[in-house]
This record gives sequence, C-alpha cells and structure tokens, in this order.
Amino acid sequence: MSADSKSGLQLRSLIKKSGELEISLVEVPTAEPSAEEVVVRVEATPINPSDLGLLIGAADMATAKASGSREAPVITAKVPDGGMRAMAGRLDQSMPVGNEGAGVVIKTGSSEAAKALLGKTVAMVGGAMYAQYRTIRASDCLVLPEGTLPAEAASCFVNPLTSLGMVETMRREGHKALVHTAAASNLGQMLNKICLKDGIALVNIVRSPGQADILRRIGAKYVVDSTSPTFMNDLTEALVETGATLAFDAIGGGKLAGQILTGMEIAANKNAKVYNRYGSTVHKQVYIYGMLDPGPTELTRSFGFAWGIGGWLLFPFLQKVGPAEAAKLRARVVAELKTTFASHYTQVVSLQEALQLSHLAIYARRATGEKYLINPNKG
Amino acid sequence: MSADSKSGLQLRSLIKKSGELEISLVEVPTAEPSAEEVVVRVEATPINPSDLGLLIGAADMATAKASGSREAPVITAKVPDGGMRAMAGRLDQSMPVGNEGAGVVIKTGSSEAAKALLGKTVAMVGGAMYAQYRTIRASDCLVLPEGTLPAEAASCFVNPLTSLGMVETMRREGHKALVHTAAASNLGQMLNKICLKDGIALVNIVRSPGQADILRRIGAKYVVDSTSPTFMNDLTEALVETGATLAFDAIGGGKLAGQILTGMEIAANKNAKVYNRYGSTVHKQVYIYGMLDPGPTELTRSFGFAWGIGGWLLFPFLQKVGPAEAAKLRARVVAELKTTFASHYTQVVSLQEALQLSHLAIYARRATGEKYLINPNKG
Repeated sequence: MSADSKSGLQLRSLIKKSGELEISLVEVPTAEPSAEEVVVRVEATPINPSDLGLLIGAADMATAKASGSREAPVITAKVPDGGMRAMAGRLDQSMPVGNEGAGVVIKTGSSEAAKALLGKTVAMVGGAMYAQYRTIRASDCLVLPEGTLPAEAASCFVNPLTSLGMVETMRREGHKALVHTAAASNLGQMLNKICLKDGIALVNIVRSPGQADILRRIGAKYVVDSTSPTFMNDLTEALVETGATLAFDAIGGGKLAGQILTGMEIAANKNAKVYNRYGSTVHKQVYIYGMLDPGPTELTRSFGFAWGIGGWLLFPFLQKVGPAEAAKLRARVVAELKTTFASHYTQVVSLQEALQLSHLAIYARRATGEKYLINPNKG
Repeated sequence: MSADSKSGLQLRSLIKKSGELEISLVEVPTAEPSAEEVVVRVEATPINPSDLGLLIGAADMATAKASGSREAPVITAKVPDGGMRAMAGRLDQSMPVGNEGAGVVIKTGSSEAAKALLGKTVAMVGGAMYAQYRTIRASDCLVLPEGTLPAEAASCFVNPLTSLGMVETMRREGHKALVHTAAASNLGQMLNKICLKDGIALVNIVRSPGQADILRRIGAKYVVDSTSPTFMNDLTEALVETGATLAFDAIGGGKLAGQILTGMEIAANKNAKVYNRYGSTVHKQVYIYGMLDPGPTELTRSFGFAWGIGGWLLFPFLQKVGPAEAAKLRARVVAELKTTFASHYTQVVSLQEALQLSHLAIYARRATGEKYLINPNKG
C-alpha cells in the first residue's frame, strides 16, 4: 500500500438534532486489514435509490445549499419537522454511505484467503463504499473474472440480487408470473432480461410512454402505462393473460398497489363459477421494496380477503434462503455480468462532484433512467 | 318428520340488475336427506357481521322500505351505483343466508352415522341457516352434550373458531402476544377469555370508554381507546409491555392498521442498539378480517420494511391447518361452550321479525355490543 493510501476521503451524512442535514467529505485513516481482511481501492460505486435513504434521509433537497471548498465541499439542507421522527435513530451521528462498489485489492491480511486476492478486481457490499479505501473481509468480496472493469462490477449486488430475489420469491411462494412497477428502472430492465431468459411472464407498469418504449426495445411483452386513461383495463388484460398474482412495487405511496390487487382480483374472478362474497380464493400479493413515493399507501379493498401487502428487502430475503442459495444467485450474477446484469450509468463523478448541487439535484430526484456512478479515486 | 316440516320458510337476499336489494321469505320444500344426511329443525341462528355482507350486500340501508304482509314481509333498498361492481357475481340470484346455527335433528338418512343423530341437538355451519329446516351431512354436524340448548350452541363456529384461529395463527407465525380491534365485540370478548385462560397478552383497541369498561369488567389488562387524545402513546406503551407484533383488525378502513404497525415499530426500536434506516428487523403483521369501515385503508409507512398486512378468513385458515387441527379446535369449543365461548344476544327474533325495519336498523349498524339471534321456528 502506497503511503498516500494510509488515509482517504470518505463521504459522510449527518442529521443534527437541530433539523439540519450535512453531507461532507472527511479524511479517515485506512483501517489496517486483520488476517482475514483486505484493503480495496474503490473505483466504482453506484448511487442507488436505496442509498439515498441514508444519504439525504428525510431532508427537503429544495432547501439544499453548498458551502466549503472545491476540495472539501459541504451540502446542507433542512429536514422538515414532520420527517424528524423517522430520523430519531441516527441524529448527530456522522454516517458513512454507499451500499456496494468495486475496486482493486491493494493490501491484504496474512491469511491465504486474503493474500490470494492481491491485485484482483472485486465487488463488495456492506456500506461505507463512498470512500477511497475500504477494508473488508476477504470472504465478503466477490472476485471478478480477469478483464472485468470496476465500473462493470460496481452494481453486482443490489440490483442483480434484488431482481433475482424477486423471481426466486415468485417460485417459492407459488406464483407463476410477476408484476413490477417503476419498471423502466435499471433494476426493472434487469428483471426483464431475467424473465425473458427464464421464460417468465412479466407485467411492467411504467409512468410514461417513453419508459414504455425503453422496455419494448429490450423485448418486454407486457408494458402498461399508469398515466394512460385505459390503465386499469390494460393492466387487468395483462393480468388475465399472464395469471400474475405477485407484484413488486418500488413506489409504495398512492393507489397503485391497491389497483394491482384489484386487477388481480378481477382476473381471478373471470373464470370463477360460484359467487363468493369474500372474493376469490386466489392469493394476491404485493411486496413494497422501495419508496419512490413516500406518501401514504391507499388501499380501496375491493379485492376480497385473499391478499397481502408487505415490505420486502434484499438482505432479509438472502438470510431467509440461506448461504447456499445466495451463493448460487451470486454465481449467476458473475456469469452474466456483461449481459443480463450490465448496468448503464448516465454520469461518472468524483466524490467532490457528487456533492455539487447540480448533480445532487439530478440523482436525488430518483428519476427512472438517470443513474450515477461515483469513482472515489477519479483522477 | 311431521307433514308440516315437508316445507319451511327460508330467508332470501336478491340484488337485481336494476340496483335494488330485496330481502324476503320464501316457502321451500325441505330436501329429503340422502343416506349420509339429516334434517335439522333450526332453532337458533345468529346474525354475525359476516352474514350482513350477503344479507344486505352493498345496499344503502338508509333507503330501506318495508312492504308485503306481516306473514310475508319484504324489505327493499337501493344499491348505490358505486357498490354495484362488487355485486356483479350475485346479480339476479335469490340467495339463502346464514352461516351457522343450531337445532334438533328431526329426520335422518339410512346410514348409521346419520341415524345416530336423531333427536340430538347439533350445531352447524355452511350457509342457508336462516330457514326453518336445513338438510345437511351428518359429518358436518357438531353434536352437543345433553342439556345444551340450541340458543347456547347457535354461535359454535364463526366467533369461537375465529378467535381460536387468531391465537393459533399467532403461535404458528412466531408472535408472542396479540392486538385486536373493535375489541369489545362478542368475538373480542371470547378472545379475551381465551387469552386470559392461556396466559397470552392481548392489547384491546376499542372506540369508546364504555367499550373499554366492558372489557375491563371481564378482566382485560390492556385496553386502549382510539378516540382518546393519548391513543398513540397508550397503544405504544401497551405494545412495549406486551411485545405484541401481530394484530387482527375487524375495521379495515382508515388509519388504524397503519397506526398499529407504527406503534409496533416504535416498540421494536426501543431496544435497538444500531440505527437501521430500513427500520427494525422485527416482523410486524396486521390481518384484516372484517370490514366495519369499508373505506380505504391508509398506511403512512413509517414502520420500515419488515411488515405485512393481509386479509384473513376463518375457512382458508381451517383448510390450511388441516382437519385434525380443526377437530381439536372444535372439541375445545364444545368443552367450553358455556364458559369461554358463551355468546350473549340482545334480541331473539323470528324470521318475520328479522325483516322489520326497526330491527334491521339496529343489526345492520354492526354496532359493537348489539347481537341478534334468529329463531326460525319461534312460536
């Protein structure tokens, strides 16, 4: 490890009791690796919607202000009173950010497993990736084939495993087809590629004709636009055709989750022979895995009693299926990294650039189709 | 079987395509029992909230009118346009009503099992109980101990098995205490008796101080009033004390289900040592099993991602646990019929009286604490 890698910049998010968010860069010493650990020079780490929860929390980014220097920029913003309760657990704690990333192993601990990684390009998950260096257990690194660039491997975990996890959940819970919302997202495109490859019918719900086009271009068969006046009919038709009774919803707020259940119920009753005032006996399920709309979820319960809505997260899912199954899913990601699981970024920025208001305004919007990659060691 | 039991009155509910509900009594021939069947003279059959769905459907009972004669009364009411879609499956079908009841076996088929029931008092479930006679499979009858009156056995199934089903669901899904809403209901009182007997902590949510008193008088320890200004604090305190992470909600509409999840999340985080921006990892569940408020369910999702809401019904539950477990639950009901599972009725009416506007106005309100019993053979 070169002298100048003994410490490095790390992005921090702090929400103060006073109701102010502060995002800044701090110089932190690089932790010495224990026997089982390695030090990775992080070269690519994406800004996922799931990172924004920690990065900006409940702050209102319309109030964001920049200060500090070009080398050490600082962003501040107000957290509305109503948002502070949910922040109670993190107040006055300076928190590192960044779920996943990739880079090159530049130093290792003394174990054989650690030493074997020296010079390798690896993908990582586990937080604190918006940093120049990350000390991590060798066993938590996913070693990539020769010739894989860190930028290609930056998003190995969250989106690939989440989309594979959706398909696996479908199989385990006895459904035969899927519905996905905000479906033109990076994750949604991956899910389409998996479903096309595995022969699974997928109903994509998007929020604009442009997003529908993105999906049709990659071969999506069922694409419905929730802004269309014929949305409920289009959705129900697709549900009748596919028999989908499981949906993954990235939006959370509003009426969409309930509309999906209503459409599934209408589809289920199409073939019902006997009136059942409790509704169809077909179980209909929506998992909310994102929060693109943090507003309330409104369910007009016109879908009987055989239904469920719940939260869904990748890490509890991986725990539930166990390490052997999780390893299988990871192996598939590596094998199809440049095809099914290829991510596309609209911007590659340094840590300093990530803290410029002009960039922040774009990635904090969570707009489908915009995706940022940070290179903490960008020259 | 006497000559005059060859036919009997049966209550019917009809919703016409024109948007009119008609409730009437029709004289129907008593079905001859097959070898495995018996004929029961129905002497007691309750009006449960779960019966009202079929009896009045989506009709607006403020528009109800009486016609017909004293012997053959007819009730009509309008179904609002908005309610007609949910009625599509039953239009222009004259439907018998009444989930459960009890009576005396007056004729049997030729099998030994059927013949053994002659003269016995039995409880039944299966619909069409608002009738003077009901032909039913002997194996579907629950034979009651000598000295049990039909009125004591009328509510053997729906409320007792539902409340036992809640406790059994709690055990199977790994929760250790329960929350119940509209908790002063007949069912809610049974649930309190079960929980007191079995040593299970139960948080009762009621909607008035009077209802709270009813429950405290039967020994309930945790009673919180959702109309109190301190409701959220009271609820959260009870959740912290009991560790309840499973709720059964009879109301359905409004914000209550979400408030319960929020309270559970605050309770779960009380002992959390590390900030987790996805919320606590403790799974929090609400099952909606009723529809006292048919309006939308509004979830302000301030309870992380480890949560679920879903529909819950008795019959799918019994199917899921299987016949051996269901038989165990039924045996407990019979053993504790005069204690834990005793029902109290505020009125006993004939079929004709059930169709009087003055009575209808009371039982159609679904008011907690009001409970009607029909005796179709009332002299």
